[in-house]
Amino acid sequence: MAPFNPRLLSDGLNRGPRRKSAEEYINGVLSGNRVILSQAITLTESTRPEDQELASQVVHACLPHAGNSLRIGITGIPGVGKSTFIESFGQLLLERGHKISVLAIDPSSERSKGSILGDKTRMEALTREENAYIRPSPSGGSPGGVARKTRESIILCEAAGFDRILVETVGVGQGETIVHSMVDFFLLLMLPGAGDELQGMKRGIMEMADGIAITKSDSGNDKRAKIAAADYRRALELFPPADHGWKAEVILTSAVTGMGLDEVYSLLENFQESMKENGFFEKRRKGQAVYWMNEYLSELVRNRILENRDSRQYRQEIQERVTGGTLSPFEAAAMLLEHALKDRS
Amino acid sequence: MAPFNPRLLSDGLNRGPRRKSAEEYINGVLSGNRVILSQAITLTESTRPEDQELASQVVHACLPHAGNSLRIGITGIPGVGKSTFIESFGQLLLERGHKISVLAIDPSSERSKGSILGDKTRMEALTREENAYIRPSPSGGSPGGVARKTRESIILCEAAGFDRILVETVGVGQGETIVHSMVDFFLLLMLPGAGDELQGMKRGIMEMADGIAITKSDSGNDKRAKIAAADYRRALELFPPADHGWKAEVILTSAVTGMGLDEVYSLLENFQESMKENGFFEKRRKGQAVYWMNEYLSELVRNRILENRDSRQYRQEIQERVTGGTLSPFEAAAMLLEHALKDRS
Repeated sequence: MAPFNPRLLSDGLNRGPRRKSAEEYINGVLSGNRVILSQAITLTESTRPEDQELASQVVHACLPHAGNSLRIGITGIPGVGKSTFIESFGQLLLERGHKISVLAIDPSSERSKGSILGDKTRMEALTREENAYIRPSPSGGSPGGVARKTRESIILCEAAGFDRILVETVGVGQGETIVHSMVDFFLLLMLPGAGDELQGMKRGIMEMADGIAITKSDSGNDKRAKIAAADYRRALELFPPADHGWKAEVILTSAVTGMGLDEVYSLLENFQESMKENGFFEKRRKGQAVYWMNEYLSELVRNRILENRDSRQYRQEIQERVTGGTLSPFEAAAMLLEHALKDRS
Repeated sequence: MAPFNPRLLSDGLNRGPRRKSAEEYINGVLSGNRVILSQAITLTESTRPEDQELASQVVHACLPHAGNSLRIGITGIPGVGKSTFIESFGQLLLERGHKISVLAIDPSSERSKGSILGDKTRMEALTREENAYIRPSPSGGSPGGVARKTRESIILCEAAGFDRILVETVGVGQGETIVHSMVDFFLLLMLPGAGDELQGMKRGIMEMADGIAITKSDSGNDKRAKIAAADYRRALELFPPADHGWKAEVILTSAVTGMGLDEVYSLLENFQESMKENGFFEKRRKGQAVYWMNEYLSELVRNRILENRDSRQYRQEIQERVTGGTLSPFEAAAMLLEHALKDRS
């Protein structure tokens, strides 16, 4: 018997059933077993080296069975109604025979890992559906770490047979860019009658959008929604043409009446068809894979240098000059790199 | 005479007056010359190695004269009224005898470097003031690059005698986290009557805030503003206590009537006083310097590895397996690192 290790007591993976073998996880995921899918995702989120090794095997084996889905990123400012939109649109996807998976990304939480208002009551109707799989945001860590976990969740869900993956940003933060870098279609939700919003959004987000859905456009808001739609359409025309030739469309929607959801569905299908035809669908996915390879490499390398024992004392000295205010952080970084390279040659 | 180099023609630095010597920049900045301050900031934003070398000398020499300011980050969702708040609050700072500098951060722009609605008409009244210096966001580049440029701008402005530095986020994206990592006080602007907003903001941003100002709280909105303030105060109480012991306050403001701006000013002064007293002011700045040193080191190292000729072919092979879908980006990153380290030993 192994000696007593108090760390095991506080590790979630050890409180539940024993870890399975790689084959058990792989076969379970490929057969569409939701319980095992959940356990496999939990495994990818673990920080224990043994778990990471095992998770890496499982993801590697699932990779050839993944990719057969449309990955849809959904973002929008707080209060725009992301959850209710996903709840309604998710139902429509289920009616059309899709198997859907809803993942969330929240890399912005710095201090607490909880939420003020619980996540548990969100998307209640969807959680009861056989063909829907809802997974909350992986907790904390670096943006690279959150990205890795979410990308691996996408692969596992696809290998388990889900063909529409919705990736939702939670809160306001870095989530938008991360999500944009891992989906096929980027849907931006906007409130009706938001002339002010337009000004704030002048750069970045709107340009990433493959489609804009104006939420809460039902009666009472219909006039403001139409004005907003016209504003956004006008703004979209000011952008330089995207390299894939797709023009983002603006659609009025209401999660309450179901208005516009059909149109959003058609937009997604048209997008998928024409992007597969012109080769951009594959090209975008390949570019994203290389992007994440580079991002993750950077994270790994930095961890390695900072943990290098030989340079620890030099690093300490440099750091003291930085905190003492006689060396800028950027000069210091250049010096550390110089030192690390000299050290090895 | 040097041979004709067409690149020089398109380089902004060469269109204006000739580059100065390091001494001229340093003396100009330290004497508070705004024209030379602008030129020095432009120099830090240049991507030419000679300019970067020169900029590094200038920043290094200014470093001992920097730091004597309160650095205030200002963020909020699109439409909240950041520019008008800064315009009014900036006037108040000027009346109290401060010299203010307004910097902007926008790392989210991926495709275009322009803006839909021009930045030039913003803060018109402030731009006419002797003791105010307004600088738009440095263009594009990596988040690390944007951070470096903005941090160096802060140092140069402080060395030039500005004692209140306002750093504003533009658009929605990664700006909030970057700004939070380089300021002393993080002010979050919120709209009145935004119960929905609260839900979306459940993690991250609100927890970073040292203060919340509700904008547009003048008559017509006053009832909704009060309800919102109560909501936010209630939410703030749910957070775990911050390590510096400061409790974020919520203030009702109006840029039109000037309501609440005095209170925001007092809040900032109280914050500065009590954080200097308990030592957290210095501690936070030191922690930020180390954070940026690490971030920038990571960026430098990654660039170096990706440009290494010896590993280029191996990298090409790995990348093809990633884009071919038989290797995950994260496995690939681990393999590249392994290879690079083996290569050198």
